[in-house]
Amino acid sequence: MKVAADTGSQSPWLEQVKWSDEGLVPVITQDYRSGRVLTHAWLNREALALAVSEGRAIYWSRSRSKLWRKGEESGHIQKLHGVYLDCDGDTVCYQVEQVGGIACHTGRESCFYRKLEGDDWLTIDPVLKDPDEIYSGAAH
Amino acid sequence: MKVAADTGSQSPWLEQVKWSDEGLVPVITQDYRSGRVLTHAWLNREALALAVSEGRAIYWSRSRSKLWRKGEESGHIQKLHGVYLDCDGDTVCYQVEQVGGIACHTGRESCFYRKLEGDDWLTIDPVLKDPDEIYSGAAH
Repeated sequence: MKVAADTGSQSPWLEQVKWSDEGLVPVITQDYRSGRVLTHAWLNREALALAVSEGRAIYWSRSRSKLWRKGEESGHIQKLHGVYLDCDGDTVCYQVEQVGGIACHTGRESCFYRKLEGDDWLTIDPVLKDPDEIYSGAAH
Repeated sequence: MKVAADTGSQSPWLEQVKWSDEGLVPVITQDYRSGRVLTHAWLNREALALAVSEGRAIYWSRSRSKLWRKGEESGHIQKLHGVYLDCDGDTVCYQVEQVGGIACHTGRESCFYRKLEGDDWLTIDPVLKDPDEIYSGAAH
């Protein structure tokens, strides 16, 4: 174990989550005030335990196969205000305060910035900050 | 094809969604007014095409391997107010009006009715209608 997160028998609440065969569940993250859905990501036991203990959104990056502390490169961390579990126990919802007001790597408030209008996905959100500025000096 | 939904080349917007190898993407459904997250489910091309053409939330039930017209048994349909796609193109968000105010099969407003408080998932939402009443006369 590289980290001190309690992911074992001392945390029965973690075992009430119905982890997939790969040990994951999806997580929806929304702004705790506006309700806007910001991101859709994934959790493993360790990510959820650490998020709760550190009070910030932490995910499991499936593409990089590692923990992803949201904001570790951009500074746009998400302060955790609430953690919810659905009726089936297989999906989590984080309610967060989005520091900097930017959740998306494109520099927008939310990852869900495209809306279906007729036959087209229209971009409805402005870029609040150039991604090159957000990630300058940090490895992607 | 049993249904008339256009899921082919005449709908390039459907092909801009990054369907998984199984032809699915997750969908987050939230109340279009309050922003409350109601459900987390799955879509295939046909479900999304039909939802848009019929103006109501339709999903793909992975457990039953069939289309799931939300509300077909309970009457608690979800009128579709907006469809959003995320930056990666692999997650959809439905904004809906929840008829009857009950999205969860337990008779609650939202499926996310358990909140982590300390080491426990506390039920924070009341049952608005007994599930036996909701589903009386209908096959589950």
